[in-house]
Amino acid sequence: MEARVNRQWRLAARPDGMLKKTDFALREESVPSLVEGQMLLRNIYLSLDPTNRMWVNETATYLPPVQIGEVMRGGTIGVVEASRNAQYPEGSIVQGMIGWQEYAVTNGEGLTILPDLPGMPLDAHMGLFGHIGMTAYFGLLDVGQLKEGETLVVSAAAGAVGSLVGQIGKIYGCRVIGIAGTDEKCAWITKDLGFDAAINYKTESVPKRLRELCPDGIDVYFDNVGGEILDAALRFINLRARIVICGLISQYNEKKPAPGPSNFANILSQRARMEGFIVLDYFNRAGEAMAALGKWYAEGKIHYQVDIVEGFEAIPEAVNRLFTGANTGKLIVRLSKEPVREVQA
Amino acid sequence: MEARVNRQWRLAARPDGMLKKTDFALREESVPSLVEGQMLLRNIYLSLDPTNRMWVNETATYLPPVQIGEVMRGGTIGVVEASRNAQYPEGSIVQGMIGWQEYAVTNGEGLTILPDLPGMPLDAHMGLFGHIGMTAYFGLLDVGQLKEGETLVVSAAAGAVGSLVGQIGKIYGCRVIGIAGTDEKCAWITKDLGFDAAINYKTESVPKRLRELCPDGIDVYFDNVGGEILDAALRFINLRARIVICGLISQYNEKKPAPGPSNFANILSQRARMEGFIVLDYFNRAGEAMAALGKWYAEGKIHYQVDIVEGFEAIPEAVNRLFTGANTGKLIVRLSKEPVREVQA
Repeated sequence: MEARVNRQWRLAARPDGMLKKTDFALREESVPSLVEGQMLLRNIYLSLDPTNRMWVNETATYLPPVQIGEVMRGGTIGVVEASRNAQYPEGSIVQGMIGWQEYAVTNGEGLTILPDLPGMPLDAHMGLFGHIGMTAYFGLLDVGQLKEGETLVVSAAAGAVGSLVGQIGKIYGCRVIGIAGTDEKCAWITKDLGFDAAINYKTESVPKRLRELCPDGIDVYFDNVGGEILDAALRFINLRARIVICGLISQYNEKKPAPGPSNFANILSQRARMEGFIVLDYFNRAGEAMAALGKWYAEGKIHYQVDIVEGFEAIPEAVNRLFTGANTGKLIVRLSKEPVREVQA
Repeated sequence: MEARVNRQWRLAARPDGMLKKTDFALREESVPSLVEGQMLLRNIYLSLDPTNRMWVNETATYLPPVQIGEVMRGGTIGVVEASRNAQYPEGSIVQGMIGWQEYAVTNGEGLTILPDLPGMPLDAHMGLFGHIGMTAYFGLLDVGQLKEGETLVVSAAAGAVGSLVGQIGKIYGCRVIGIAGTDEKCAWITKDLGFDAAINYKTESVPKRLRELCPDGIDVYFDNVGGEILDAALRFINLRARIVICGLISQYNEKKPAPGPSNFANILSQRARMEGFIVLDYFNRAGEAMAALGKWYAEGKIHYQVDIVEGFEAIPEAVNRLFTGANTGKLIVRLSKEPVREVQA
């Protein structure tokens, strides 16, 4: 095999606020040759997620921090280009945490071979299945305990997780209100995805609109953002409301923790339950979410959208699309071309 | 029957901050004569609780606000002095929400006849059983899901609920840290009640002491106070910690809601559960708590203390003992003498 060059983004500095290209160092390495049990992976898609921002802070959260000098952590889908591991034949499509690099030599630890789903694009494993789909599915149904006829409010509603959460809410016969940051996003979730209503938090008063749109109060609030929007939602929670703390994207670029929600006392008077939730804890139940989401997709009841950024060099700054609200749907970087799939006879 | 005079404290104004005597109006009424189905109750003990302060605010919380002009709401124990209701014979000791008054004529709705527990003082129904005991028992075990060997932290630890919570924690084989506001209270909970350690939040740094005293982190935080102490506890919560929001006493006299806890993001990274809890929801399971607490009391494993204020006129200002931290154990006002109990032959 010819010696390949692997480009990597390694963490170079602890970022301050939004990520900058200079927080990462581009490093080129020769790809080593394989020994028995190893394979060579070429990354095709890299998932960019709000939680990436937490991983580069000095303090550990639910995963250890990425250390200075390490390849930046990230979820990827890749193809096996060469293999000396019988479990991963050449051409296999695999998903794992290979990180911000073009190639990797690995023994397969922590990787999953993706099934070829007829009629389903490869990016569905990032936009509909995988950690995004599981986050929406288990967060809403397992942590949030959503029941038919309830009122569901979701923030970052045009994001990867939020857009699925709202659609699952509609499948469950709920009234669904989404909060997003542009009129285009609001139109997308109401007209294309079937949400009952949307609030543009940049141009409208969230408390005022929630009061109008949730006349019977809020039963489940699925929160991706924290901060003032969480606070507004807490004003209108019902008895025994469930508040699913899935993300706090408004806080991730802040150096100091912001004050928590002022309407916190409603948790007491409404006997509400607020629960933090990390999708990693549900990976052993991936099949359950995939079966439900796949069925709904096939029935035309659920849609997903990907926001694809092109090229390895764009990675460090592309993450910021999540924080500026530039993306609609799942943010992905395409690092190389998908292999041509064989059409079944 | 001679015409009796009933003194009542009626709400006269919406209080601003701590309660003042002028927020209430003392009214004297003649006690009406009984019609069939009614009885005359003489109040003996009045329970004063932090939640009383919430009831006089204009906004409803878990109960409707007491209206201006109404007799102030409050839990009482009284004796039936005259009866035209066969279910409540003369001499019966009953518990209910008769309010801040000396007498009441009632048909018995919402009242419970208290059993005469041999060897147990009547005030045990306020300090150990009743809403206090149920709050500690169900809050810690049902909401908090405390398990053997865990680390439990409780605030307002020398209060009525907190002191029971810590003792139940010790019965469950847990490491128990209490937070209180005087050295005397700290000595009482560690030396007399068996807590492993105490923090005087007025003279010590709560975060620093929690770090020292909870080297393995906090599994259950039973919160009676909110504010900065809640925030400090959130810094040290373990994976899947339970935070029981039982009370927010630091906030009740505030006009505007204070900012919520800054260390709120730990709920997400630790997948913690924070749940509000009101004891009223557990009244149908009173027997369960009473059986367990009674058994532990008989075995000498649990103690309670009452802080008795004398006399009807003292009521409005006595509530403030809860907010200044003057009380140790259950705050009660004695309105009249207990009837002499017959000694069993």
